[in-house]
Amino acid sequence: MKARVHVMLKNGVLDPQGEAVRHALGAMGFDGVQGVRQGKVIELDLAEGASEADVKQMCEKLLANTVIESYTVEMT
Amino acid sequence: MKARVHVMLKNGVLDPQGEAVRHALGAMGFDGVQGVRQGKVIELDLAEGASEADVKQMCEKLLANTVIESYTVEMT
Repeated sequence: MKARVHVMLKNGVLDPQGEAVRHALGAMGFDGVQGVRQGKVIELDLAEGASEADVKQMCEKLLANTVIESYTVEMT
Repeated sequence: MKARVHVMLKNGVLDPQGEAVRHALGAMGFDGVQGVRQGKVIELDLAEGASEADVKQMCEKLLANTVIESYTVEMT
């Protein structure tokens, strides 16, 4: 059983890493880039019987800093 | 126009970050976690007319280290 978690900064939270990537892309000649947001994708191999609620608990406790980050969970 | 890029370590490449997350989850009592792979998700705001080929060029030149990482591009 697999789960895929996306962790992104909440809207309104400054993303210095994304800004740095945007500037670098511009400097390399990619001028159509208006904004960049960078986050984490975490793929989990889970034992049978693991539930979405378990994965959400993992996000709340460890995988995401819920003060500034939001997360989505896809069970696959 | 938006594009979403997923950058993951290639299979076979050791993922120390993923291992650290797996151990931490185990220590917190989440014992059903058999494997963890962590990567980047990059959301790009692009000017109209930008193409998937442009985004792939950005990946090849900057967003992914193609020696150890693979990437996927979704235009949304």
